[in-house]
Amino acid sequence: MVALKVKRIEMGTVLDHLPPGTAPQIMRILDIDPTETTLLVAINVESSKMGRKDILKIEGKILSEEEANKVALVAPNATVNIVRDYSVAEKFQVKPPERVEGFLRCPNPNCITNDEREPVDTVFVRESREPLEYRCRYCERTVREDQIRELIRPS
Amino acid sequence: MVALKVKRIEMGTVLDHLPPGTAPQIMRILDIDPTETTLLVAINVESSKMGRKDILKIEGKILSEEEANKVALVAPNATVNIVRDYSVAEKFQVKPPERVEGFLRCPNPNCITNDEREPVDTVFVRESREPLEYRCRYCERTVREDQIRELIRPS
Repeated sequence: MVALKVKRIEMGTVLDHLPPGTAPQIMRILDIDPTETTLLVAINVESSKMGRKDILKIEGKILSEEEANKVALVAPNATVNIVRDYSVAEKFQVKPPERVEGFLRCPNPNCITNDEREPVDTVFVRESREPLEYRCRYCERTVREDQIRELIRPS
Repeated sequence: MVALKVKRIEMGTVLDHLPPGTAPQIMRILDIDPTETTLLVAINVESSKMGRKDILKIEGKILSEEEANKVALVAPNATVNIVRDYSVAEKFQVKPPERVEGFLRCPNPNCITNDEREPVDTVFVRESREPLEYRCRYCERTVREDQIRELIRPS
């Protein structure tokens, strides 16, 4: 039997309560290079709170609150555990960022951020938290929580 | 401390000895939907044989040899463990497939498979096993082992 030894990590970040199936996308959001980082990813595992969930354990990297908050775009109820010296030194809930630069694309095909000849990085500003809504700074198009997952650019 | 309970699986497939960082790509090659499948993915973990490796544990799904062999395109030394009734019922090494249909793109920009007006699925035929080499059935362009990873289409 192939046993997966899951060692406790000395230092790193554990993202818990991610919606089932979102971990690969969250790795892209956080710009994690899987050839350089030790990760343990549990996808679609049982959760007493959520039914099913994903967990992402990143070894050797402490996410800042700003970085972790990007995760809120696809995982609004994610919990972040910062591990130092083999124990949780900090624990917080993510908060959706006020400004999102670059990694969402605008759904409006006529937005200048979709102009292939002269590409401009997208900027979205948070309009509302509940329900989560962002507005494109260039064309004013609004995107809602349920659209966000499809608008994340592949890395 | 968030403990990741790694349960033994009743039935499923464990892919071991994957090159570090290849697990996300292998999930795409196998067309695994992370919203539907329970997975445990270890990325860049220590390996006595390889230094570093990835492991992909797929719950509830038995890969056929044909499916598993696709993995050989990016992980030529992968080992496949088929688990039934909580124990390994079968174990084999992957073998690169003789024919690869659809999921590699041809690096030749003039190949008809890259014609956007009338897209044709790619077909590559294995030319050599060591070093691994495939040839496009349409334009005869050869691709080598070290090129294959970049030619896998994003899903």
